[in-house]
Amino acid sequence: MRNTYDDNNIFAKLLRREVAAARVYEDEDTVAVMDVMPQGPGHTLVIPRRASRNLLDADPNTLALLVQVVQKVAKAVKKAFSADGITLMQFNERAGGQTIYHLHFHIIPRFIGVALKSHITQKTDMAELEKAAKKIRQALNE
Amino acid sequence: MRNTYDDNNIFAKLLRREVAAARVYEDEDTVAVMDVMPQGPGHTLVIPRRASRNLLDADPNTLALLVQVVQKVAKAVKKAFSADGITLMQFNERAGGQTIYHLHFHIIPRFIGVALKSHITQKTDMAELEKAAKKIRQALNE
Repeated sequence: MRNTYDDNNIFAKLLRREVAAARVYEDEDTVAVMDVMPQGPGHTLVIPRRASRNLLDADPNTLALLVQVVQKVAKAVKKAFSADGITLMQFNERAGGQTIYHLHFHIIPRFIGVALKSHITQKTDMAELEKAAKKIRQALNE
Repeated sequence: MRNTYDDNNIFAKLLRREVAAARVYEDEDTVAVMDVMPQGPGHTLVIPRRASRNLLDADPNTLALLVQVVQKVAKAVKKAFSADGITLMQFNERAGGQTIYHLHFHIIPRFIGVALKSHITQKTDMAELEKAAKKIRQALNE
């Protein structure tokens, strides 16, 4: 079943609230959460509610709404973590780096002199992620 | 003059047709060109015409239009190069990996078993880039 949408992927479960997540932002179309295996503090994911495998099959209107939330959250993440920059990444299919087959953008705060880390392989403590999410929610409300 | 827009950046010049580029796609709002220092064959850039330093200062409507062209071009790039996947990247400020201060998305075709390369430091031959651009233009028209 390659290149199709599997309703049991972890983000589909997250959107149905079947798994916990440190939520940063929600609206009718989009959810933002902390990455549970972050490439650094403040690593945030922006996910459309609409079932889309990745960029290649997404509805163009979904993308238009999504990228505007990506911007909003990226600005808040940069502020919340006093980051010097932001690296945005989005992976399509296994060769493209995708591991979860529901469309998502990675927002990674970056700091001068600090190289981009690989995804850690152990889950971060949920209390830690909640603390990060709270900082970003505050920045979104400022 | 940090965090401002410099009208003399290379993409501003490209948009004014003051420098050559292997063009893949153009519309009223957006231009797509081959990266002159590609991280692999088919590495394409999607650039809004509107002056925007990066994701952080861009007009939300500009972003909405831009991401829809990113999708269109990504699909054509994948097809033109028979890629297994696509990695999308967008860099903000120096710490975030940005080197040219006009908003742009990187579309990089990926192949199973081939790691993402660093940006090459020498410019690719324009004839080579034109050949790649032609393949993508064909895929866009199919």
